[in-house]
Amino acid sequence: MVTFEVTTADSGSRARRGRLTTSHGAVETPAFFPVGTQATVKSLDPTDLAALGVQGILCNSYHLVLRPGSSTVRELGGLHRFMGFPGTIITDSGGFQVMSLSELAKIQEMGVRFRSHLDGAALELPPESALDHQRDLGSDIRMVLDECTPYPSSRGYARESMERTLRWAARSAHARREGDAAVFGIVQGSTYSDLRAESARRTVEIGFDGYAVGGVSVGETKALLYDMVEASTAELPVDRPRYVMGVGSPGDLVECVARGADIFDCVMPTRNARNGTAFVRGGKLSLRNAAHRADPGPIDPECGCSTCDRFSRAYVRHLLQANEILGAKLMTIHNLYHYMELMRRIRDALSRGKFGEFRRSFVEATA
Amino acid sequence: MVTFEVTTADSGSRARRGRLTTSHGAVETPAFFPVGTQATVKSLDPTDLAALGVQGILCNSYHLVLRPGSSTVRELGGLHRFMGFPGTIITDSGGFQVMSLSELAKIQEMGVRFRSHLDGAALELPPESALDHQRDLGSDIRMVLDECTPYPSSRGYARESMERTLRWAARSAHARREGDAAVFGIVQGSTYSDLRAESARRTVEIGFDGYAVGGVSVGETKALLYDMVEASTAELPVDRPRYVMGVGSPGDLVECVARGADIFDCVMPTRNARNGTAFVRGGKLSLRNAAHRADPGPIDPECGCSTCDRFSRAYVRHLLQANEILGAKLMTIHNLYHYMELMRRIRDALSRGKFGEFRRSFVEATA
Repeated sequence: MVTFEVTTADSGSRARRGRLTTSHGAVETPAFFPVGTQATVKSLDPTDLAALGVQGILCNSYHLVLRPGSSTVRELGGLHRFMGFPGTIITDSGGFQVMSLSELAKIQEMGVRFRSHLDGAALELPPESALDHQRDLGSDIRMVLDECTPYPSSRGYARESMERTLRWAARSAHARREGDAAVFGIVQGSTYSDLRAESARRTVEIGFDGYAVGGVSVGETKALLYDMVEASTAELPVDRPRYVMGVGSPGDLVECVARGADIFDCVMPTRNARNGTAFVRGGKLSLRNAAHRADPGPIDPECGCSTCDRFSRAYVRHLLQANEILGAKLMTIHNLYHYMELMRRIRDALSRGKFGEFRRSFVEATA
Repeated sequence: MVTFEVTTADSGSRARRGRLTTSHGAVETPAFFPVGTQATVKSLDPTDLAALGVQGILCNSYHLVLRPGSSTVRELGGLHRFMGFPGTIITDSGGFQVMSLSELAKIQEMGVRFRSHLDGAALELPPESALDHQRDLGSDIRMVLDECTPYPSSRGYARESMERTLRWAARSAHARREGDAAVFGIVQGSTYSDLRAESARRTVEIGFDGYAVGGVSVGETKALLYDMVEASTAELPVDRPRYVMGVGSPGDLVECVARGADIFDCVMPTRNARNGTAFVRGGKLSLRNAAHRADPGPIDPECGCSTCDRFSRAYVRHLLQANEILGAKLMTIHNLYHYMELMRRIRDALSRGKFGEFRRSFVEATA
C-alpha cells in the first residue's frame, strides 16, 4: 500500500512538501531518486546509500528483465532483497530503454517489439507484461508502458503517440492485480501544452496511484521543459504524488518543484561523477582539469560529504586520471550528496514558508 | 623509526609470530599487505581497509612516480595523507615494473633506463633515485633497487645479475639519509640455492633494517619457490623482518611462513576478485559460472565478510556479468577478508603453539 500526504503547500508557487509511504518506508518529498539501473547505484553499496540519506531509488526494468531476468529476481525474493536496499524502489516500464538501447525496436498497438542489445533475442513488451515484469521485480512503485515521444515531434505524431499511450494506460489499469504495489500513469503530449493537459486529464480519468510527467528533458529548451511540466501538473490531482521522469540538473529540480513536482530521477549526478564532473554550489567542476593536479583542498569547501571530508581534489583527480574504481565512487558520493542536500534545503525552505526566497537565491547563485 | 620483535617462535619450523612497528602503527606478523598500486587498493577506500583489519599495504613506486609524480605526492603531504590510509605503507623500488611494463627497458650498471608506458618519456632509475622517490612518497618501508631475475635464468646470468643487485644495494645503503624510514635489502639469486645463500649473506653484510626475498613466484615450480625462500631466510638474521615479495596463494603463504617469512604482498586476492574468482575455504570459486545464476547463498557460508553477510552469489554474479563496479568491490572485500582471516588463523596458531597442526590441516583441506 502506497500513501501520500502533502504536509506543506507553498503560497507563491505550486511547490509542496509531502511524505510518500510505501511498504519500504517513508520518502520525504520533494525527493530525488538516484538511478540504480542494474540493481546497483553504480559504484555504491546499500551502506553508502544509507549514509547519503537516500530513501528511494529507481531501477530500470529493461536491463533487469534482460539480465538477470525478472523471474530470477522474483526467485531471489525481489529487488529489495536481491540488492540489499531496504528503501522504496520505483521501476520504469522498460519502454524508454527499449527505444533507446535495443535493436530494431518497433512500436505497435500491442506494445513494443525489439531485439535484446545483449544477445539479439526477439522480444516483445506489451503493457501487461511491463507490469508483470515489475511485479516480479517487486518494486514499490511501477510505471505503465508509454511512448516517450521523441523531440521534436509534429503535432500529428504527438497526438497519435499520446492516444496510443492512453490506450496502453487503460490496458495497464485493467491488467493490474489486486494487492499490487502502486502503479503510476504517465502524461505525454510532447511539447504541446494542450496535449499535455488533455493527456493528464485522460490519464487521471483512467485512475492511478500517482502520475508521472514523461517525455521531457529529451532535447527541448529549458523553457519548454518547464512549461510542459507546468501544463501537466496543472491537471493532476493535488493529493497524488507527481513524478517528473529523467529530470534533471539542480536548477531543473528547483524549477520543477515550483511547478508541483514531488519526485525526480536522473542519471546526471551519477553519470557526471564517473566522467569526472562534480556538482558544486553555483555550478560544475571538471576534476580532470590539470588545475587540480596538486590542489590539497576538497572538491567543494562548502560540502559535508565523506569525499570532501577526507580527500583532496588532487587525489580524486589522480584516481580519475588513473581510471581507478575508487575515483568513480568518491565522485558519485559527492554528487549524490550534493543532490540530496539540495532536496533537503528545498524541503526545509518549504517547511519554513521560504521556498520563494530559496528559489530566488538559488537562481542568483547559479547565474 | 621501524622496530620489529619476534613474540613467538614455532618449535617445529622457522615460523614466527611478531610485531612490526612503524611511525604509522603496529603490524601483527605474519602479515599480508594488500597491493594499492596507484595509491588505492583497487575498488576500496580507507574505511573498507580498516573494516578488513588491514594494517599495512604496498604501493608501487613506478606507477606513482609516473602519475601523479613523487614530488606531487610529497607536496600533498605524502602517501598516507594523499590516500587517507593511516597504516604502514611499503613502497617497492619501481624496478620490477620498469622491466614488466615500460618500453625499451635496459638494465645498466648505473640503474635502469626506460620509456614511460604512459607518454613514452625517456627516464632512468638509478638506485639512489629509487630511494629518493620513495622518500618523496613518504612510505614507512622502502625497497632498494634490484633486478628481479627472470625465470629461467642460467647460472651465469643469475650470478651476474645478483652481483649487480649487490652493487646497487651497496650504493643504496650509502645513499640513505639520516632519519629516513626503514630500507629493506633484497635477496636474489634466481633458482640456485647457493646463490640465494650468498646473496642473503652479502646483503646482510651491507646491512638493512629488514630483508626481502625477491625474484620468486616468477614462473618456477612451487617446490623451487619454497626452496628458494628457505635458502634465503636461512641466512637472514632472526631479529629483522623478512618480506617475501609478490607471494602468493593461500597455500604459498602458509608454506613461506613455515620457512620464516613475516610479510607478504600479492595482487592475487584483488586481481582475482575483479576477474570473478573468489577464494573460499579449500579452494577457489568462479562466480561467473552459470551455476550461481540464481544461488541465494553467500559466496562462502563459512565466511564472515560484509559481502557474504549481505549478498547472494546470484547478486554478485549479476554485478560481475553486468560489469558493475560494485561487483569488483564486493569480490575484493571477500577475497581480502579471506586473506586477512588466513593470516589471523596463522598468527593464532603460532601463539597457541599449534602452527604445525594448522599447517597439516590446511594442506588436507586444500588437497
